[in-house]
Amino acid sequence: MLDNTMTELLKIEYPIVQAPMAGGITTSKLVTEVSNSGGLGMIGAGYLTATQTREQIREIKQLTSNSFGINLFVPNEFKVTEKEVKLANEILSPIREQLNLSPKDNFEISTFHNAYETFNEQVKVVIKEKVPICSFTFGIPSKEIIAELKQHNIILIGTATTVREAIENEKSGMDIVVVQGSEAGGHRGTFIDGYQESLVGLMSLIPQVVDNVSIPVISAGGIMDGRGLMASLCLGAKGVQMGTAFLTCIESGAHKAHKEAILHANEDQTVLTRSFSGKWARGIKNKFILKMSEHEEFLPDYPVQNTLTQEIRKTSSAQNNRDFMSLWSGQSTRLAKNQSVEILIKNIITEAKNINLDIEALQ
Amino acid sequence: MLDNTMTELLKIEYPIVQAPMAGGITTSKLVTEVSNSGGLGMIGAGYLTATQTREQIREIKQLTSNSFGINLFVPNEFKVTEKEVKLANEILSPIREQLNLSPKDNFEISTFHNAYETFNEQVKVVIKEKVPICSFTFGIPSKEIIAELKQHNIILIGTATTVREAIENEKSGMDIVVVQGSEAGGHRGTFIDGYQESLVGLMSLIPQVVDNVSIPVISAGGIMDGRGLMASLCLGAKGVQMGTAFLTCIESGAHKAHKEAILHANEDQTVLTRSFSGKWARGIKNKFILKMSEHEEFLPDYPVQNTLTQEIRKTSSAQNNRDFMSLWSGQSTRLAKNQSVEILIKNIITEAKNINLDIEALQ
Repeated sequence: MLDNTMTELLKIEYPIVQAPMAGGITTSKLVTEVSNSGGLGMIGAGYLTATQTREQIREIKQLTSNSFGINLFVPNEFKVTEKEVKLANEILSPIREQLNLSPKDNFEISTFHNAYETFNEQVKVVIKEKVPICSFTFGIPSKEIIAELKQHNIILIGTATTVREAIENEKSGMDIVVVQGSEAGGHRGTFIDGYQESLVGLMSLIPQVVDNVSIPVISAGGIMDGRGLMASLCLGAKGVQMGTAFLTCIESGAHKAHKEAILHANEDQTVLTRSFSGKWARGIKNKFILKMSEHEEFLPDYPVQNTLTQEIRKTSSAQNNRDFMSLWSGQSTRLAKNQSVEILIKNIITEAKNINLDIEALQ
Repeated sequence: MLDNTMTELLKIEYPIVQAPMAGGITTSKLVTEVSNSGGLGMIGAGYLTATQTREQIREIKQLTSNSFGINLFVPNEFKVTEKEVKLANEILSPIREQLNLSPKDNFEISTFHNAYETFNEQVKVVIKEKVPICSFTFGIPSKEIIAELKQHNIILIGTATTVREAIENEKSGMDIVVVQGSEAGGHRGTFIDGYQESLVGLMSLIPQVVDNVSIPVISAGGIMDGRGLMASLCLGAKGVQMGTAFLTCIESGAHKAHKEAILHANEDQTVLTRSFSGKWARGIKNKFILKMSEHEEFLPDYPVQNTLTQEIRKTSSAQNNRDFMSLWSGQSTRLAKNQSVEILIKNIITEAKNINLDIEALQ
């Protein structure tokens, strides 16, 4: 069941991928510790400029000679009017006030429209810097970009939340597909199906995807230890991608308040929210989420809401105030630990090996 | 990892429990075929009277000498006013008209209040008829009832959707707890936590529950085959409870249109809805769910809405019209098959045995 297709393709020892969490979490230290410990370290480059992307890639190359990867956000079409932006700013205004931020109501619509340019520049950097692995979230890049990346022998990983999305990824030429279960923390990678329809638990999602695609499947969502790894392999995945488990590691760049929030949360304290970015994402409930939930229908789409809340999130972080930060987390909070990446990966493998499936007992 | 605590406790060969689906699905033929094939057949007695309960238990005893069980709905407090019932009936009125049912607006509030009486009578029948195993949904019975059942050596199984609910079940004296993941079809068993908070995927839920209780855990939700069984065991469960997989079996009493709807659905066609009963449940989207979703906030709680929609569901079934039936289903619809119980169980065990976890490959 555990063949080596995926580990050989990614040139890694263990079938463990560190989720490419964006927003400063995937420090070069985190990424390279993962790669140096036998897993696949991944840069979450979703919010980086092309220059920042290049810098981090170069830094990582100094710190590891092992395989590593990068994740890019595929830009998507969105519509927004001045009126909608104004209303969204009005909703955020009491929170800005509370954080001593000056009012904001003069956003230029054009501010939100440079995503395509950044994405294309990032792709060029990935090719130029010869990053061995590139994954995508929020959609599938154009045929031209896929062809160019493949021409440079870059291994491509897509993201899917339903069987249909996995099939589209395979069709597009992706070498591997990450399937994101409803358990997952952070942004939903959904790009075809509706919000509720795409919230499928991994126990259902993995086998249904595996039966319908022939590329290797990596499972993501709530996987924290050797039990989750072995369960994923039983369901037909070839490996796992873990976010929250790496987020609380010593080497991660997540804010201390974010790590603490996860380390002290129960499995029932995460919710799905559009409040921070305009896209659905799972995080630990806080004041911001609760306040915004009253205005759900007026929150503009990604990337508009993301841009509008940026300063709030930044200031809240600087003030060590978890009330207005995005505390992304999967549903397995009770299993999170603050430990080194090396210990985390060692423990996963030890635990996985110790799972003695006494199959003979099933007479 | 697979110890025999649970199978020995339940006196079954394989760690497979047939979910006690209420509403005519668990025919005596289904229950006894499961028990005769090495699993645990369960009567879904949630909607039965005490007399019907007794009759089915006796019928089952004629058909198997193996272990079997029964599930009872634990009644819960609810509030409803005449006005709310009137409004709920108004919402249902166009559908009644479409089905040629006479208008209804004169429901006696007292109609909804006999659940406690029925429950107590059912408990007496279970004891008198010496049913070896009794499970509960929607809550935990009173200390007195638990003590009485245990005095008669009846094995008790509780239902939980969060760690907290599992802990409460253990504290109450339950011998085993079923943990219901967000993948599960039919009614959510939630009784402490909120709706969204209790939608935890099994990949997250099983290990977190297992770490916090010492009684055996049975996992439920989206499990359809040997892969799901082995994954559940890896995560720390001692066995699985399967609903949808048995619902589409030849021996199940589910309506043909219900079976067909599942057999032709994708993994993304189920939704959570309060429309049929007033309690959240997962089923395949149809006209009724879509229409009622516009009135979500006005739908009365269980059992009020359940009583109000009864005639609609019944008539819709009689007319082979799936538009107004409750098409309960878990998220693994693509894995459903129309086969005999015997073949289903045989295939699960064969597939489970063939999962060759090449642990040595994890060097």
